[in-house]
Amino acid sequence: MFHYKILERWVKTWIILAGTNGSIAFVAFAQQPLVPAWKQEIIIVLNKQVEAWNRGDIEGFMQGYWKSDSLLFTSGGNIQRGWKATLEKYRKNYSTKSKMGILKFSGLECTLLSPESAWVLGHWELKRESDHPSGVFTLVLKKLPDGWKIIHDHTSSAK
Amino acid sequence: MFHYKILERWVKTWIILAGTNGSIAFVAFAQQPLVPAWKQEIIIVLNKQVEAWNRGDIEGFMQGYWKSDSLLFTSGGNIQRGWKATLEKYRKNYSTKSKMGILKFSGLECTLLSPESAWVLGHWELKRESDHPSGVFTLVLKKLPDGWKIIHDHTSSAK
Repeated sequence: MFHYKILERWVKTWIILAGTNGSIAFVAFAQQPLVPAWKQEIIIVLNKQVEAWNRGDIEGFMQGYWKSDSLLFTSGGNIQRGWKATLEKYRKNYSTKSKMGILKFSGLECTLLSPESAWVLGHWELKRESDHPSGVFTLVLKKLPDGWKIIHDHTSSAK
Repeated sequence: MFHYKILERWVKTWIILAGTNGSIAFVAFAQQPLVPAWKQEIIIVLNKQVEAWNRGDIEGFMQGYWKSDSLLFTSGGNIQRGWKATLEKYRKNYSTKSKMGILKFSGLECTLLSPESAWVLGHWELKRESDHPSGVFTLVLKKLPDGWKIIHDHTSSAK
């Protein structure tokens, strides 16, 4: 079924052929996917992050980020520099599964800047027993040898 | 004096030549400027924004932004779409010179993504009689026919 679903998105026109012997045949004309490859790839990176977060796997979540000392993460007026420091900050702030809650991204707007760079604007929300914080994030991504990685994340909370 | 200042930044080595007749000559060896052109151009755009803000000229401040319905500005969890809507929001929120206060940008970190795209991380602060808000901003810029313009601004406040 998976292959069928992928194909379905490409299909532009269906033609139904009715044979004189009463048989019916279907012909589908395909076109380029509506969602370009770069955008599909970036959305997969973000979906994997959400999946990792929601199983309590912060290191898995961090795989979406550039593993570099130059990674820049900012939230609440503070700037975190480097992949390891960002991982430690997340580990400290979300030390239990209940603090992590259930993460959801929505309203993603992806813009390609060059064949190997893009930025994304999106909404985030966290469903937790005690609260339901939400806000907006801006990501800058680069296509590196191991795929699209977030090189900058600016996450802010709704007032 | 302006030309002299520009040149001075390029100079790497001075050589002093002392003639046998007691005369002295100076020779300067120049190299490429330490700050690349794209970064100088972007910093000029941001400096012009600050200058316009600090003389109470919101429309002048807005010249740094892409004059398009696709401009995306986000702050405090809200997304503002389009140059005109962003201008109106600024006019509404900063209706007097005392609300505008004195704007200062600092700690600018500029990263080139392609010859025609870049992003900037920086700190902002507003000195006003009643308060002193500050925070962080992320800008995505494109080099358009009329120069570098901000196509996305994510501004957040320190907690």
